[in-house]
Amino acid sequence: MKCSCSKIVAAAALLGSVSAQTFRRLGACPTLGCVFPPDQADFLAGQYFDIRLEVHQPRNGSEFIGLPLDNDFTFTVAKKGEEAKPATEFFQLEEPKLEHWNFTWFEDLFARDANKPTLVNVAAKAYRRIAIYEPGEYTATLNYNNGSKTEATWLVRDLAEERKAKNIILFIGDGMTTSMISAGRLIAHEMINGKYQSTMAMDKFPVLGHQMTHSIDSFITDSANSAAALNTGHKTTVNSLNVYADSSRDPFDDPKIETLAEIFHRLTGGHIGIVSTAYIADATPAALVSHTRLRSQYGAIVDTYLNGVQNYTWTDVPVDVIFGGGAEQFYPPELGGDTYMDRNYYEEFAKADYQIIQNRTALLAASSEEKALGIFTTSNMAKWLDRNVYRENLNQSLSPTGDESPALDQPGLKEMTLKAIDILEHRSGDKGWFLMSEAASIDKMMHALDYDRALGELLELDDTVKATIKHLNSTNCLKETLILVTADHGHGFDVAGSVDTQYLTAQDGDRKKRDAVGTYEQSGESQYMNSGNLTYTDSNFPRNWDPRYTLFQGVTANPDRRENWSVRKDGPRVPAVELEEDSDDYYVNPEDGIGGIVINGTLPVGDSSGVHSLTDVPVYAMGPCQEMFGGTYNSIDIFYNMAACFGLGRGQAPEKL
Amino acid sequence: MKCSCSKIVAAAALLGSVSAQTFRRLGACPTLGCVFPPDQADFLAGQYFDIRLEVHQPRNGSEFIGLPLDNDFTFTVAKKGEEAKPATEFFQLEEPKLEHWNFTWFEDLFARDANKPTLVNVAAKAYRRIAIYEPGEYTATLNYNNGSKTEATWLVRDLAEERKAKNIILFIGDGMTTSMISAGRLIAHEMINGKYQSTMAMDKFPVLGHQMTHSIDSFITDSANSAAALNTGHKTTVNSLNVYADSSRDPFDDPKIETLAEIFHRLTGGHIGIVSTAYIADATPAALVSHTRLRSQYGAIVDTYLNGVQNYTWTDVPVDVIFGGGAEQFYPPELGGDTYMDRNYYEEFAKADYQIIQNRTALLAASSEEKALGIFTTSNMAKWLDRNVYRENLNQSLSPTGDESPALDQPGLKEMTLKAIDILEHRSGDKGWFLMSEAASIDKMMHALDYDRALGELLELDDTVKATIKHLNSTNCLKETLILVTADHGHGFDVAGSVDTQYLTAQDGDRKKRDAVGTYEQSGESQYMNSGNLTYTDSNFPRNWDPRYTLFQGVTANPDRRENWSVRKDGPRVPAVELEEDSDDYYVNPEDGIGGIVINGTLPVGDSSGVHSLTDVPVYAMGPCQEMFGGTYNSIDIFYNMAACFGLGRGQAPEKL
Repeated sequence: MKCSCSKIVAAAALLGSVSAQTFRRLGACPTLGCVFPPDQADFLAGQYFDIRLEVHQPRNGSEFIGLPLDNDFTFTVAKKGEEAKPATEFFQLEEPKLEHWNFTWFEDLFARDANKPTLVNVAAKAYRRIAIYEPGEYTATLNYNNGSKTEATWLVRDLAEERKAKNIILFIGDGMTTSMISAGRLIAHEMINGKYQSTMAMDKFPVLGHQMTHSIDSFITDSANSAAALNTGHKTTVNSLNVYADSSRDPFDDPKIETLAEIFHRLTGGHIGIVSTAYIADATPAALVSHTRLRSQYGAIVDTYLNGVQNYTWTDVPVDVIFGGGAEQFYPPELGGDTYMDRNYYEEFAKADYQIIQNRTALLAASSEEKALGIFTTSNMAKWLDRNVYRENLNQSLSPTGDESPALDQPGLKEMTLKAIDILEHRSGDKGWFLMSEAASIDKMMHALDYDRALGELLELDDTVKATIKHLNSTNCLKETLILVTADHGHGFDVAGSVDTQYLTAQDGDRKKRDAVGTYEQSGESQYMNSGNLTYTDSNFPRNWDPRYTLFQGVTANPDRRENWSVRKDGPRVPAVELEEDSDDYYVNPEDGIGGIVINGTLPVGDSSGVHSLTDVPVYAMGPCQEMFGGTYNSIDIFYNMAACFGLGRGQAPEKL
Repeated sequence: MKCSCSKIVAAAALLGSVSAQTFRRLGACPTLGCVFPPDQADFLAGQYFDIRLEVHQPRNGSEFIGLPLDNDFTFTVAKKGEEAKPATEFFQLEEPKLEHWNFTWFEDLFARDANKPTLVNVAAKAYRRIAIYEPGEYTATLNYNNGSKTEATWLVRDLAEERKAKNIILFIGDGMTTSMISAGRLIAHEMINGKYQSTMAMDKFPVLGHQMTHSIDSFITDSANSAAALNTGHKTTVNSLNVYADSSRDPFDDPKIETLAEIFHRLTGGHIGIVSTAYIADATPAALVSHTRLRSQYGAIVDTYLNGVQNYTWTDVPVDVIFGGGAEQFYPPELGGDTYMDRNYYEEFAKADYQIIQNRTALLAASSEEKALGIFTTSNMAKWLDRNVYRENLNQSLSPTGDESPALDQPGLKEMTLKAIDILEHRSGDKGWFLMSEAASIDKMMHALDYDRALGELLELDDTVKATIKHLNSTNCLKETLILVTADHGHGFDVAGSVDTQYLTAQDGDRKKRDAVGTYEQSGESQYMNSGNLTYTDSNFPRNWDPRYTLFQGVTANPDRRENWSVRKDGPRVPAVELEEDSDDYYVNPEDGIGGIVINGTLPVGDSSGVHSLTDVPVYAMGPCQEMFGGTYNSIDIFYNMAACFGLGRGQAPEKL
């Protein structure tokens, strides 16, 4: 765990080999010589990337070896079977300048508790905006400390230059797992004697696969680095967007990897769309075009949507459609905003000829011929359940104008996606387009242990997929569009029976309340479609979110909370709170789960919400190239399959102008 | 919930419509007139089945309508578009005799607590051993109570008479989910910078699908009715094996459905093998050939393996190979056994010319030309972890001879499966064979919250699959064998990070101990392959089951327990115990999870273990017909696909002899 303090202290006695430790000095750099991209990295032929080299000199701790900092490290690259050449020769570049910095880190929890960090001095270089064009295996070798070396085997994948799909839509159910889809199906589709009378749109996809979501240096991922894997074909460290994480303080100098959107536009002129129900600076939308070590650089991310990477020569990629929440990164500080360089980004985008849209009414009326920025609320957009059933909660959403009125007229994922498709179709002509559409709050509501709202978001995603297929079919675009539906990572969710909420409330004492749970045959049938009177046009959602017998649902890793397995009618759930402000010590929220049972958590007490999990997540594919997505594979393979489907491999450098 | 007491009491005031209740008078019979098979049932053309009709007369309770019991109900069947005929005419049968019985049930938990059951009188009939040969839709109509009717729509699926596979192997990882496979991969396969250096055998299958496992009348299943769905193409009620559950007391008179093994042998003479690491009378192996409302009829189930269904005319299916545990159903009561009619089933099977095998040494030496009964222990077979790493625990397994010595020489799933294949290959000639091989203790160990042992069983299944493919390839059988790997149902398992067990133990107090949990980037890398020195020949298992940093793993629904996330070295885990004998009130086992944190459960306090969950489970397919198994479908579709692959649909009745 890195900390930015510069205290140098004597190391505590630490056990265990550093290479086997869970805490890492720097991810994907187990020795004192770091090469990024590291060993085992795959590349798309012609994909631009940066190289970062670092030599580490620990000043204390378990890796201390007493050598001076090596400023004379060398770096060579060899194609397999050929002679190694200095990188400057191999890539035809000037020798980069030598950089120096230091950092500290804790070697384990004991060191952290004792406040005994390890200090590391760094000598570093970066080679910028390189590409390798010939498929095959390469070895990048860093020679340092007079005889040590780090060898990174890089694989440039086989060329796929033939374009098979005109368009690709990548739907991301953030945090969505197979178990959640099973639960969504159960509450929103009628079943008679074990036979579903209708099924999810996802259920009907012809091809099913599983992707492995783990990080490069840890087995659990967050939405940033998992999105980076999907967008670049390179895994990286938690919190990182389309860069390998180096150890410098600057979150914008880390070695970048070109994204699918960037390559696609650069090579074909194709158009790009980004749609999300999250604040639009959030990691999953940001991952289309942003490059930073820290996903929390919200202002800069929004600037990148408009102006691209500024601090280095890099691929420019105009984005036609940007729809979501997060108005704080658009209205200026005078109104309470938190924008890059204090600018007014509504004005900035308007100056660049974007339509500025701020509510559903305007969205539905918007032109399909103009670029469009649609920001519909501050923070995350309102949840489907609050937009459609418990509408009084819309007062909790604030207007994207920054005037603090409620945002009562918000679109859903379906309306945003359909409009985005229309704009992209009109503006791209025969160049085609790539759209990412994210149901962000499956994940956010699972974090909040608000299972009902999470499933509402999931059902909205499924409804959006259904409507998208219908729309593309009616406009004759379906056959030329690859549609993918997947997640970035999972949560450990499942349903283990039902709960008689009437019985639960009527019992005194937690142990007696637990008898309200029915497992196996006592789970009974889903009540969400058997009772109630909510109806929807051409959409599948529960008739009743509040039946007597509810789902006995939950996740494997929790903070303290009280469960009553009933829908929260007053807005998104808050399961745990600090009883003392800023204590970082979370307890059951006394106002949540009334009538239920208290369960202590297993997560660190500083965590107020659920966390991500290891599980492989489903991939649904339909359209050109669909067959590539069956079976079990790594997350990065989704990038390479999409790139192959767009025919983006390049065996030769572009002509220099 | 049914109870067998005959007390007639005045009904409590009960709320809610019966048809929407979770508690059911009788599953798949929401009205007072019951038809089994019920509405929505699918059939294989030519598949034998029984029909059960019941008319219910509630004497009290919320469904009381004051009519006399209707003994004059009538029953017709119509092919779609044709005229309805009395069933006797349609099926060319005599009118069955009228039967009477009664039963009681509790309408909900309040009624149960108040001990106020509802009494129901029943008039019933059964039509035995029927088949429908013409594909298409049929309506079976029960007319009762002078104007009421129950209409069941039956679908006889399209004929698939062309045989495409010579053999089928159905591997069942009992309780195995995608999340568990992800965890097994993580602990048993090396990863460098996010790239696995090897993957699971299951990961390499060309086709991946998902199956929905729910019951006919509840959304959670057990191993009995989920296996029934896979073996017959008909869903049924929890605890039921290859019968629809009627309301009579007799567990052997319920309407039967012919299984794949029965049909396969009857039509083609193909040979059958059953392999399981459970006691061999357990539901998943029993489901190949048994028919009973109650999976707990262990003695009768073993008798059925040998003698088939005895109380009715039914398909005889000799079983060539029966390998597993559960010697209690074989050695006689004098030795402590629990056998059907107090017989010695080793003797009974020997009289029928089976080799009797009782240990691994004898298994490996056994002839491939003779039928074989291999019973290797009492109760469930020893777990992979105890056979391979913590071998002193083998003392907990008792000899299959009944002499109470330890069963130290037990085979694993791999050895049993490979020998079963050899026997089936030798004996079946060109007729082909159907083998079911079950890794039963993935589920049993997940019930026990013994995650490590469960993953060990899962890895053994994967190793078995790998060895099976290699073996079939070397004997040239691979191309003609459809290999399926799936589960029957799931548990709500996942991994959400890692645990520093050294830090956990060193902290005082549960809240401080929870800081030992590392999530996201703090999950780090898997230590199970990075440390330790266990090695295996041509197999993938962890190098170290006991590293400092372990998996932060768990399930969504638990009894009270103490978690320390460390492997249990003394044998399978017992997380909860009755502090008072026979109290049905389970608390944390004070001897389990020392040093960990206590977490209260959410399951009823009478439950000592984990339970099954809703999640769809993966299906892996390789070989002839593999393409049929991609995408998302119902569990019953696996039966219809296997039947199609064997070419078992029959459009005409067999010639009468």
